[in-house]
Amino acid sequence: MASDSRTNAGFDDLNIARKMHTFVQPGERVFVILTSGSLSLSQSIMNLLRASFDAGEGIAQATSMYEAAREVGQVVRQVSDLDRAALERDKYDFNVHLLLGGQVRGEEPRSFLIYPQGNPLSSTEDSPFLQLGEYKYGRPILDRGIVYQKTSLKAAAKYALLSFDATMRSNVTVGPPIEILLYRKDSFHLDNYRRLPAGDRELETIHALWERSLRNAVEDLPDLTFTPHPDYDSQKILI
Amino acid sequence: MASDSRTNAGFDDLNIARKMHTFVQPGERVFVILTSGSLSLSQSIMNLLRASFDAGEGIAQATSMYEAAREVGQVVRQVSDLDRAALERDKYDFNVHLLLGGQVRGEEPRSFLIYPQGNPLSSTEDSPFLQLGEYKYGRPILDRGIVYQKTSLKAAAKYALLSFDATMRSNVTVGPPIEILLYRKDSFHLDNYRRLPAGDRELETIHALWERSLRNAVEDLPDLTFTPHPDYDSQKILI
Repeated sequence: MASDSRTNAGFDDLNIARKMHTFVQPGERVFVILTSGSLSLSQSIMNLLRASFDAGEGIAQATSMYEAAREVGQVVRQVSDLDRAALERDKYDFNVHLLLGGQVRGEEPRSFLIYPQGNPLSSTEDSPFLQLGEYKYGRPILDRGIVYQKTSLKAAAKYALLSFDATMRSNVTVGPPIEILLYRKDSFHLDNYRRLPAGDRELETIHALWERSLRNAVEDLPDLTFTPHPDYDSQKILI
Repeated sequence: MASDSRTNAGFDDLNIARKMHTFVQPGERVFVILTSGSLSLSQSIMNLLRASFDAGEGIAQATSMYEAAREVGQVVRQVSDLDRAALERDKYDFNVHLLLGGQVRGEEPRSFLIYPQGNPLSSTEDSPFLQLGEYKYGRPILDRGIVYQKTSLKAAAKYALLSFDATMRSNVTVGPPIEILLYRKDSFHLDNYRRLPAGDRELETIHALWERSLRNAVEDLPDLTFTPHPDYDSQKILI
């Protein structure tokens, strides 16, 4: 699970806030929730989830990841009942997406995307990763690299970092610190966490090495062959 | 200059059409125009441009690339006058973007993006490439690789191909054949052209080599170091 920490209320109002939230019952349940969209909405959702979790209710009692995803979806709907009408009256969307990953004892780890409508979408063998927020710039590197049950956790961490690195270059609303959390199946603990602020030395080393490797890899590809441009009717539809 | 050839009028209505259009007065002027957005609109624009070029008017008389970009923008406005009201009445945007590259004798080669409003935007030293249409997936590889007046034409062709390769994987509205055209300064001819249909052997070789190089490059990066996750108040704003 990886997240950035930049939030904004317009280009002239950037702030830093963690978007990674953890809920642990050691040995029993681990949930990690990433948020995107309105920070006000995701804060409300996390407040309600935290309160019910601390009271031993809601996701604290979920017997499967699917049930946990449905619980989270219910809380999204609760906040929708609180805020949607007021937002829409002023032409704001009810915009909040969540990404839930984790494990409930007795099950495999799973991950879900939860939509603003509260319904969940699971990752699959063919689509083994989920993204939320500004996902397009960072997707190709994940498409190339992430293979279901083959990509190691350590490699996945590097792909996630490179994905954010690509996105941060093009979109000012995505920014450091980057948080990365690796969860090892059946551990029910969060033992592998890293927060990388701007200027982090490991991050800069990886960025520089990556840019160099990438350029070398392109140079090493065979050159395309070219011929003179044919005359053609440029309006013609080709079947 | 590189373009794909897929057009659509909805997910159930995909077609193939060239989006690269060339205008050459050997030794004097070379223009290449790429189109995106509504095919109906871009066809109208190209029809008008082709007719005036063939009559020795419009861009055929432009004394600079900027003037040519303005001429193209005028034709965009002409088509806007013809079609915008009818489209907007039925809730369609007047959506057409053009990318103009080329050279007029006496000037350096230049490239411009022309907006649906007809106004031009030039590439610059700091932003040495322009994109149009579905640009996000394919941008990071260009960001890493393309350096003003340093990237060779042959390398630029590979970057363009990899950019489309990344985009085609994620967006069904971008598809082969890919057309690539390299223009060598002061040549005033189109000597280096390539059209790569789906399944092209060189394209498949490059795709496979690239995917392998990329994975190796990620594996070769130093592993990130991790520590146990700290307890923190996940709602806290960090300054």
